[in-house]
This record gives sequence, structure tokens and C-alpha cells, in this order.
Amino acid sequence: MSEPTKSIPRAHQRPFDALRPVTFVRGFTRYAEGSVLISMGETRVLCTASVLDKVPSFLKGKGQGWVTAEYGMLPRSTHTRSDREAARGKQSGRTQEIQRLIGRSLRAVIDLSALGERTIHIDCDVLQADGGTRCASITGAWVALADAIDGLLAAGALMDSPLLDSVAAVSVGLVGGQPRLDLDYEEDSGCDADMNVVMTGSGRFVEVQGTAEGHTFERPMLDQLIDLAQTGIAQLQQLASQARA
Amino acid sequence: MSEPTKSIPRAHQRPFDALRPVTFVRGFTRYAEGSVLISMGETRVLCTASVLDKVPSFLKGKGQGWVTAEYGMLPRSTHTRSDREAARGKQSGRTQEIQRLIGRSLRAVIDLSALGERTIHIDCDVLQADGGTRCASITGAWVALADAIDGLLAAGALMDSPLLDSVAAVSVGLVGGQPRLDLDYEEDSGCDADMNVVMTGSGRFVEVQGTAEGHTFERPMLDQLIDLAQTGIAQLQQLASQARA
Amino acid sequence: MSEPTKSIPRAHQRPFDALRPVTFVRGFTRYAEGSVLISMGETRVLCTASVLDKVPSFLKGKGQGWVTAEYGMLPRSTHTRSDREAARGKQSGRTQEIQRLIGRSLRAVIDLSALGERTIHIDCDVLQADGGTRCASITGAWVALADAIDGLLAAGALMDSPLLDSVAAVSVGLVGGQPRLDLDYEEDSGCDADMNVVMTGSGRFVEVQGTAEGHTFERPMLDQLIDLAQTGIAQLQQLASQARA
Amino acid sequence: MSEPTKSIPRAHQRPFDALRPVTFVRGFTRYAEGSVLISMGETRVLCTASVLDKVPSFLKGKGQGWVTAEYGMLPRSTHTRSDREAARGKQSGRTQEIQRLIGRSLRAVIDLSALGERTIHIDCDVLQADGGTRCASITGAWVALADAIDGLLAAGALMDSPLLDSVAAVSVGLVGGQPRLDLDYEEDSGCDADMNVVMTGSGRFVEVQGTAEGHTFERPMLDQLIDLAQTGIAQLQQLASQARA
Amino acid sequence: MSEPTKSIPRAHQRPFDALRPVTFVRGFTRYAEGSVLISMGETRVLCTASVLDKVPSFLKGKGQGWVTAEYGMLPRSTHTRSDREAARGKQSGRTQEIQRLIGRSLRAVIDLSALGERTIHIDCDVLQADGGTRCASITGAWVALADAIDGLLAAGALMDSPLLDSVAAVSVGLVGGQPRLDLDYEEDSGCDADMNVVMTGSGRFVEVQGTAEGHTFERPMLDQLIDLAQTGIAQLQQLASQARA
Amino acid sequence: MSEPTKSIPRAHQRPFDALRPVTFVRGFTRYAEGSVLISMGETRVLCTASVLDKVPSFLKGKGQGWVTAEYGMLPRSTHTRSDREAARGKQSGRTQEIQRLIGRSLRAVIDLSALGERTIHIDCDVLQADGGTRCASITGAWVALADAIDGLLAAGALMDSPLLDSVAAVSVGLVGGQPRLDLDYEEDSGCDADMNVVMTGSGRFVEVQGTAEGHTFERPMLDQLIDLAQTGIAQLQQLASQARA
Repeated sequence: MSEPTKSIPRAHQRPFDALRPVTFVRGFTRYAEGSVLISMGETRVLCTASVLDKVPSFLKGKGQGWVTAEYGMLPRSTHTRSDREAARGKQSGRTQEIQRLIGRSLRAVIDLSALGERTIHIDCDVLQADGGTRCASITGAWVALADAIDGLLAAGALMDSPLLDSVAAVSVGLVGGQPRLDLDYEEDSGCDADMNVVMTGSGRFVEVQGTAEGHTFERPMLDQLIDLAQTGIAQLQQLASQARA
Repeated sequence: MSEPTKSIPRAHQRPFDALRPVTFVRGFTRYAEGSVLISMGETRVLCTASVLDKVPSFLKGKGQGWVTAEYGMLPRSTHTRSDREAARGKQSGRTQEIQRLIGRSLRAVIDLSALGERTIHIDCDVLQADGGTRCASITGAWVALADAIDGLLAAGALMDSPLLDSVAAVSVGLVGGQPRLDLDYEEDSGCDADMNVVMTGSGRFVEVQGTAEGHTFERPMLDQLIDLAQTGIAQLQQLASQARA
Repeated sequence: MSEPTKSIPRAHQRPFDALRPVTFVRGFTRYAEGSVLISMGETRVLCTASVLDKVPSFLKGKGQGWVTAEYGMLPRSTHTRSDREAARGKQSGRTQEIQRLIGRSLRAVIDLSALGERTIHIDCDVLQADGGTRCASITGAWVALADAIDGLLAAGALMDSPLLDSVAAVSVGLVGGQPRLDLDYEEDSGCDADMNVVMTGSGRFVEVQGTAEGHTFERPMLDQLIDLAQTGIAQLQQLASQARA
Repeated sequence: MSEPTKSIPRAHQRPFDALRPVTFVRGFTRYAEGSVLISMGETRVLCTASVLDKVPSFLKGKGQGWVTAEYGMLPRSTHTRSDREAARGKQSGRTQEIQRLIGRSLRAVIDLSALGERTIHIDCDVLQADGGTRCASITGAWVALADAIDGLLAAGALMDSPLLDSVAAVSVGLVGGQPRLDLDYEEDSGCDADMNVVMTGSGRFVEVQGTAEGHTFERPMLDQLIDLAQTGIAQLQQLASQARA
Repeated sequence: MSEPTKSIPRAHQRPFDALRPVTFVRGFTRYAEGSVLISMGETRVLCTASVLDKVPSFLKGKGQGWVTAEYGMLPRSTHTRSDREAARGKQSGRTQEIQRLIGRSLRAVIDLSALGERTIHIDCDVLQADGGTRCASITGAWVALADAIDGLLAAGALMDSPLLDSVAAVSVGLVGGQPRLDLDYEEDSGCDADMNVVMTGSGRFVEVQGTAEGHTFERPMLDQLIDLAQTGIAQLQQLASQARA
Repeated sequence: MSEPTKSIPRAHQRPFDALRPVTFVRGFTRYAEGSVLISMGETRVLCTASVLDKVPSFLKGKGQGWVTAEYGMLPRSTHTRSDREAARGKQSGRTQEIQRLIGRSLRAVIDLSALGERTIHIDCDVLQADGGTRCASITGAWVALADAIDGLLAAGALMDSPLLDSVAAVSVGLVGGQPRLDLDYEEDSGCDADMNVVMTGSGRFVEVQGTAEGHTFERPMLDQLIDLAQTGIAQLQQLASQARA
């Protein structure tokens, strides 16, 4: 509690405020209306967007659409094999937290009334996990969502885009007393505190989720971590925008 | 997305930066090692602490203890009846999120090695819900936990308290463009954004969880909300401390 | 089997044919249409009645209503903590037996056709358990049900009360060869046989459930136990009636 | 509530106090240590007793045995097909109530210490259901249990029988105001009240479970129903005893 | 892998190409529209056919019917007791495989359009298991299905039979290097490979499912096993046809 | 039933006896001991092999190892989105059938005693599905398994390879009366019958699973389909062997 954990060297001499290499492969699979493989360093998440011509029962007849998300990790995406959630018969609390977060983040930048009575169902499946999978999921999912909406526009199913803004997310953390951007798995496991921040393209906050992992922190550090996240997200937005160009 | 929702008058002419009336009834039930009924306005949560002489299997033989939490709402604690989770056969994603948050918050202020090979199991059951139940649960649970530890000290089972600090939590939110402390249910349902903040008695952050409920916000507003939470938590810490005196 | 277990002294010098102190707190919580905290000695059950404007699917379009009940124990209502049923993912056989019993008992004193196409959903949640929780649930639930029906009458939703009678329940048991009324937890755990009896205000039987807990009994003892239950229930009916006055 | 339901003629001119024809086929299947097909009229239940050389975890190392029971109905044992519980993924409340009752009834007549550290697992599977399946299960299960114990004695695994007595069960009910013994399905569905009674060979009570199915009853009727059950059980005990001769 | 397991003598001097004694008891239970107890040696399966006036949701309004099957083993149908699937809360992979196979096999010989908008639900419940239960289930289920259809024809609910052909199944296997027809449990447990074959009355294949149980086999052996199955199934068809005469 | 379904043209002018293009990407993900992305046409399955230093409880202390498999499809691997099995809370019967088949197929070519007390856990996750996913899983899983075993040999954990042979699988089917090798999704959905065949590198059969999908077939056609599968599997073995070179 009282002593900060000792420092962990950053892999590849990465500066504390640098993202890992980020790439987006659009059209990674062929059937989904949007399909993006996002890589942030060794983390790889396949984000697909499926357009369904129905809405959940709580929205029936209300003339608006819905965006929702599910998240999963392949059992051996991780350093040691994890149980398959389908085999255990339920999704963990962590999985549910993450998929609720992804859904909320995307809904923050879409006009559900303008979407019409359809659901865009986002699936984020982690093929390889090296930290930051929930943030990579949000960033990749937005690209898949935007691609799916482009398809609806191209097909004439929508006249105007219901997308209000872009959205992206990054993790920041406190490692050995030092704030760092975009933690990898080793940093994430050993950090004093970490925070996931979700922001729009216009620089507004959607979610801020900071957690002291055994080491509480003071207000100035909180402010510094948020500053760092803002910088990182701005870069991610640019990369996502280039990928969609 | 773009227009703030219209304002909601505060019940009882409460100022924007005032807590609702807070009370702690210690010893509310008689069998638990700690048992506290916390009221924050009309929100009532029964927090019990149970001392068990065993640890979860992942800690066996490691010479340390564990603190964990479970959360539930009575089906008719709410304005309209909700399904009983035991009858539906599973806990919702929201329930799991909240009980994980309570557990992390308490573990942030206890030295698990000093606790010895025992588990303190916290149960937070909402008897009446008028907004802010997760924050009330954390604040009340800390009092129940401290009472249970006092019992272990009194019985000679522990020589020194493993408690490192106190912890308390409050919600803040943006209602009609105005930051407000300690939202009630009506405010919470209609707010643009809300944030749950958990802090220690010494003023350090444990958790910061802010969510734009359909209305994203800018950095200055984020800073203002955190300021407001800090003020509220300081008051709560004092009230909890008086209740324990 | 063959030897009666040895006697257990009654707490507080209570005579063998005396109830524990019984109280009813009406309006214990504020949102339910009926909300009663019943105490029988140290046993405390919160009974709420929720009025829902729908009926189960097997009754749709039949022009009648329904009354049903659910039962739960808070994990630390008991001397040692029990698992939370929502976390285990299912209700125990005991829980299901009890909630079926409560529902049948209440339906025995209400004219479901006169109730109209609505459901009154009773929730009995045990805050503290010292024996006799199922009987206390029935007795308290009737008061909550009656309060909810008064609300429907006052609101003009019903012209005449569908309540045909009152209902209450008590446990009796054989302890060390002696019949006793209203067993507490210690007596209940150590008794030779026990019986739960449910009767109407006009002295008619609704349910008789006697079980030899390892010590079978003869007909005269069965008759004696039923006599004792009849006496106890008459007192309970009077107390419930005073509480509703 | 207030009017008794109209009378139902008894099939086959059966007198009100007569059992249906009862038969026991021992050794109905060949692998179980005890296997009995009991018929009570058209009701057919296959009762098997399996001897397992282990005890449930709560009894480990206590030097005593256990007897437990499970109950099931084949989906088309009934007039119209019911869902298969294995396919639905859970046992109904009714099933759990019944199997708990069967287990308690058998444990009332066996000395678990004298059984040694083994479990006798009873399975009661209803092949055809025409009312009274829980009572037929108890009566048939006792014969299967006794046969299994005979096997242990014959094999020298036990020196003395742990069986203290026999046990049997019957239903009685109030049909059109008239008490009747051993209700068939049609009577059971239309009765005002019914009661399942379990007694030992020496005439002692194990369980009495009476329920007003929509029509409450007075004390003299309760006494009359119990009288009738006593008569019927005495006959069943004799038939079971002949079957075992 | 490389050495064939040693031979197992056939019980009752049965020749390698002989079926065990096969019997069909039609009308074994009285409520189902078709009810057949098939015995193949010591294997006994109760097959019932229930006619329901509805179709699964994926077929609604398509003017055709459906045939589906469920399979279960009584817990003590086997040499040692198995867990009850309803108590474990799910059907095993093996159970699901078998019931899907039974359903497909029956649907292969019925014209679902000619059946009309109704479902025939087949239940195959194993009362005693000595190998070959899935094959016995298919063979017995067809007889129950045909009886149920006869009932529909007799009642005028159908003008023409939708049955296109008969269907039956048998297992064959390789035991100690020798092909054998209709394995019993001991042979099945110790065989090198086994195969379940389902064929129509006109000698066409519906299913061929061969599995090397630890001992792979060559093409000539595969051909020989299929030859043997064809012979056995032809005999079964004749026996089923006689039973229905 | 009686008329063969009409023919479906093969995509890309593929001859009836030709495989789709097959590729193996070894080391597709970095943490698993074996990780292979197999493509058969548009079907893509990620097969990972995880080495665990433990065995299932039924093998503890028996001095041998185990190989098991799990299978899953990403929700949008298919033309239209399927439910996520983890969210539904159970694996379908189809999933269980397939993963049991993969496990059996691999165990047929490994000496479990020579593997030592460890488990190799195979995960086959379908990223994109265009027919033949179970066969692609088996073929790809063998390469991942062999890679994982090479790792154990290289690390000195094993002195000799426990692999006895290779294994591969292919589907064949009857489309419009014509036998075809390696069906794609469109052919598979519209075929009269299909068969999955699993064989070893030395040309021995492991599994033969043929199913008439609404159109039964005669013996000569069965023989022809098996011939075709043998040819295809021989080619697959060669390709897998080249990929491993």
C-alpha cells in the first residue's frame, strides 16, 4: 500500500508518452458489414459490426436504433490459457464490464434516432492479448461501426450518417511512480494504478475509469494521467481517421 | 447528444454541493461481526461484515487474508419491482460491476498480510434505493469492516489493526449543465453525466468512474466534478468517523 | 430414532405455549404498495407487496388476478454466513418450498376473480433469522397484502375487497418430548419433530406440514401439536388485526 | 373458496376408503442393488437403490452413512407431455420438494451409524402418472432400500440390518366434501384439499403434509383425513411386507 | 494404437453376425400416442411419441410439421449409477449427439409437409443399458412414430400417411480384430472400433458413424463392417414390421 | 425425400474432386505452444495448442497424458451473425459434437503414455466460416499439436515424440446427385448427403460420419464418397507435411 512498486523497463525503449505501433486492417473478414483487426503492439482485436434489421424488445416501436457490443478473449490469446467462457457457461464479471463499456462508448457518438429501427451489433474478439484490450476494442470498434454505416449509406438504406463524432480509448497508468501511456501486459500487471479513458474526436470525455491497483494516488497525479490520456487519444483519432481515408 | 437535458429541481431545496442527510446505524442486525445500516437520504443499504477462517483457493498457504464483497438489491427496494437475481439464476452485469468495485475499494485500505489467513466477506444489500447505492455501500461497508476488525482486536485474534486508512465514496453528476453532489434517483436518471469517486481518509484517490450518459463533457467540467466529489467525501469521512467514535 | 433428544431450556423463561414478542412495522420501506417488517423474537422478515398490472401467461385473458411470492435470506441473516443464492445461480430446494408455501397460503384467502387482471407479487426477505422464518413470512405477508389492497380500494381501482379472510402461520415442535409453540433457532435445530401450520382468521386450516426430524411421533402427540398451533395462530391473528387497525 | 367443488365419481366403483390395486415387481431392472416397480392403479414408479462406497462431503470421517433420493417423471408419463427437466436445465420446485420428502422419509427408519460409511442413493422415476406419485415413490423406495440392505447383509458387508422399521405413504383428499383414500389424477386435480401422510410400520408419523387446494377445512375434517390415511398406510405396509416375503 | 486389444468372448455363444434377441412391446404406457418398449438383449428403451398441435417457431406458418427427439438414461440403468442430468442442470455432449441423431434418422423417412402443422415429439428413455442404446432408440422410436401416425389416420386428422419408409439402426464393431454385429456393453467398452449405421427399409443409408476407439482401421475392414450392419438392419426391419402387423 | 435437390455450380470452376486452396500459417499468434491459422478456401480456423502440466482428474496418478479440444465460432464468422455461446450460457449440441470429434481424432495418433502427465489443450476458433470448419479444425489442429510437441522435444521435456502418425479430415458430399470433395457453405447447405472423414497419414480410418441431409443414398454411392475422401485426405496430408517442413 504505502511503497510504490518498483519500476518496470518499457519494452523497445518506448518513451513514457508514446503509443505502441497501431495498425488497422479493414475488411479482415468478409461477411461482416464492418470488420477491422486493430493491433496495438502485440494486442490484436478483431472488431466486427453486424447490421440487424431489428431492435431489442425495450425499443420496439420507438422509431430508433441501437448499438450494442460483446467482448471475448480466445482462450489462448493470453500468456497462459484461460477457460473458455462458453464452456464454463457464463461470462465473467470482467467480460461484462468491458462489453458494457464498449457499448456505452459507441452509443455516445451516434444518433440512435437517425439510425432507424436497426441494431448494429459489435463483436470484439481478442486474438492476442498484451494489455489494453478494452481500449483497443473501442478504438477498433468505432472503425468497424463507421464502415458498416458507410455501407448503409452506399446502399441507400440511410440518407445521412447518424455518426456524430469519432471515439477512441487509451489506457494510462502509474508504473514505479511514473505516468505512462498505453500500458502493455507486463506494465499493466505491475502498475500502481491505471486508468482507461474514452474520448470523442472533438476532445470531449465519454468515460474515465481510474483504479488504484493497490496504490492510491493524489489529485495532481490524477490530473497528469488524464493529460497523458488526452494526448494519446488525439493521436489514435488521427490514426483511425487515416485508416478510414 | 448535443443539447444538455433540461434541469431537474433538487428535492428539499438542497444546495448543489450538499450531501443528503447521512446516518449510520451500527449493530443493525445481531449475528454479523459488523452490521451497519447506512442511509443517504432515502437510500438505505445494510452492510454486514462476516469473518471467515479461510481464504479463497488462490491465496491458500500464502499467509495473507482477503476482503471481498457481494451486492444485491431487494426486488422492491426500487420504485417499480425488479426481478430477483436468485430467481433469474444470475447476477446482472451491473451487480457484478458494483460488487467488484466495493471489494477493490476496501482492499485499497487494508493490509491483507496483517489480516492473517482469514476472509472478511462484505454483503451490501439495498433495502431502499434512491440513487447512489454503490457509493453508500462502500461508505457503509467500511464502517462494518472496521467494526469487525475491532472485534478481532478485542478478542485477541489480531494484535494490530490491518486497517491502513478509511475509505468512502460519493456520486457527482452534471444535471442540466450544473455539477451536483450526491445525486438522488430522479437526478441520476436524468443527468447528462455522472461520476462515482472513491477516496481514502487521507485524501487519496482509489477509484474514479465517470460516464457520459448520452452527453459528453469537457476537461474543465471533469475537473469541477472531481473537486465537488473531494469536498463531499471529506464530509462523509467525518460522519463515518463520528459514527464509529 | 428411539430416544427423544434431551431437552433445551427455553430462552427468557418463555412458557411452552407462549409466542415470542411479535411486532409489525407497516410502511417500513416507502416504494412498495405494502411493506411490513415483522419481528417474532429475533426473527425479522421484510414483507413487501407489489401491485403489477399484468398476470402470468397461463392466466392471460381469463379475467382473474394472481398472487405469488418469493422468499430469500440475506447471506448474513443467519448465525454463520450462507451463500448468496444469486451468486450461486440458483435457489435452493428449501427456498422454493417456502415461497410456494407462502403463495398458496395467501391465495387461499383471496378471491382471484375479484382482484381483476393484476398480480400482487409478495417478496419476503429475511433480514435476521432466529427460527420460524417461513411462518413469520406468511403472517407478515398477509398484512402487506392487505395494505396493498387497501391502496387499490382507496385509489378506486377496486370497488370491493377481494380479501376473504386473514391468514397466519406458526411453528410448533416436540423438544425433549415436550410440545412447544413458536420455536426459536436453537429449539428448531434440536427438536424431535416440528410442524408448520397455516390457518385462516375464521379458524380453518390452509396447510399442515409436520416432519419428524429424526424422531417419529404417535397420533396423540400429533393432535396435541395441532391444538397448540391453533392457540398460537389465534393470538397471531389478533396481533395482526391490531397492527392493521 | 366458500363452496366445495362438485363431486367426481370414483373410477371402477372404488369405495372412498379403498386403495387402488397395488403391486410390487422386485428386480424390475438388473443392475441396481434394489429395483422395484410399484404400481398403484395406473401410477407406475420405478424405484432403484444404488449402494455407493462414499458419503457426501458433510459426512466425511463421521463414521456414518447416508440415504438420499432423486425423483423424476418421464416426459410422457403424464396425460400431456411435460418438458424434460434435463433439457430445461433445472429441476422444478415440485421435483425438489418431492425428492427431499422421499429422502427424509427413508432416513426416518434407518440407523445411519449402523449403515457404515456408504450412501444408498434412491432413484424414483415415474413411468406412468395417475396421481399419488410421491406416495408411491416412498412406498416403493422402501422395498428397494430393504432389498439393497439384504444384499449387503448377504455379502457380509453388514452384520446387522440398519433398518429400524418400514415406511409407507398414501394420499388422502377431500373431494366434493367427502374424504377419500388414494386419489387418482382426476380426483387429485379436482379436490378441495389433499394430504400426503407418511408413517412407519409401527404406526408412527413421519410426515403429514396437508394443503387446501382452494378450499380450507376445519379441524374435524383434518382428523378424519388423518384417520383415513392411517388405515390406508396399514394396508400398504402389509402389501409391501408380503411382496418382500 | 498399434496392437489390437485382445478378444472378448461373446455372451450366450452368440455368433459374430447374430443380433441379440429383439422384442417390441407396443402400448407399454397408456397416455402417449405411441409407446414402445424395445429390448435388444438386456438393453431396454422406452420410446414414446407425443403428437403436439404446434410447430417450433422456425417453422411457424410454413405449412409443414416437425419430428424431434430427446434421449435420456435413468441414473441406474447402467452398471454403476450415473448422475441425473436434470440434477446436474445440463445434458451431456453424448446425450445431445444421440438425440440429434435420432431426430435426423426419423425425419429422413417422413414427409414433413404431409404431416401438417404438428410436431411429433419422440422421447427415448433408457430403462436398462447393455450397449447399443442409441440404435435401439432409433429402431423403437420408429415403431412408436408409426403407431402415433396410425392414430392420426384413424382419427381422420390425416388422410394419407406421411411415412415414406421405415428406419432402423444397429451397431457393429471390431473386437479383437473380428467384426461383430450388435455389440453388448462389455464388447462395446473393449472394442477397437465401432460403427452405428442407420438404414431405411428399402436399404438406403441414413447415417454411418464409425469411430476408431483407439485402434484405426483400413478400408477393407470398413467395408466389412458396413456389410455386417446391412445384414443386421434388414433383420431388424423385418422384426419391427412383424411387431407392427 | 425422393427427388435429388437440383445441382449447385461449383465456385471458381473447381473440379468435383479438387480441394479448395489450402494454406497453413504457423505461429499466427505468439503465446501458444502451437498456433496455426488454416485456410481452406474462405474457411479460416485458428488452431492453438496449449501445453499444461496437469491432467484431468480421471487420469491423475496414471502416468499418462491427455489431449482434448474445444471449438468455437466467432459470432460473425458466418454469413449472418450467430449468438455468442458464452452469452447464451451454453455450448450448442453441434459445438459439443465437433469438439468431441476433434479430440478423438487427435488422440487416435498420439501415444498418451509417452506424452507424460501433461495435457495438450487444443482450441479451434473459426474466424471465418465457409463450410468444412470441423475438418479444417482437425487438419490444422494436428499441425499445432505437432508444433507444440516439437517444442517439448526441443526443450528436453520429452526425449521421443509421442506422435504416432499424422491425421487430417475432409468433407465429401452428394450435390445434385454428384459426389464432390471439400464442400463450401453453399454446397453444404444444399447437398443431399454429406460425410466427414478423418484418416491417418498411413491411410487408416479414424472417423467416418455420413449423414443423409434429407436424401438417403445407396451403398455404391457410399463407397464412391469414401473413395473421394481418401483421395482428398492424402493431398491434405501432403500439404500439412510440407507446411511443417
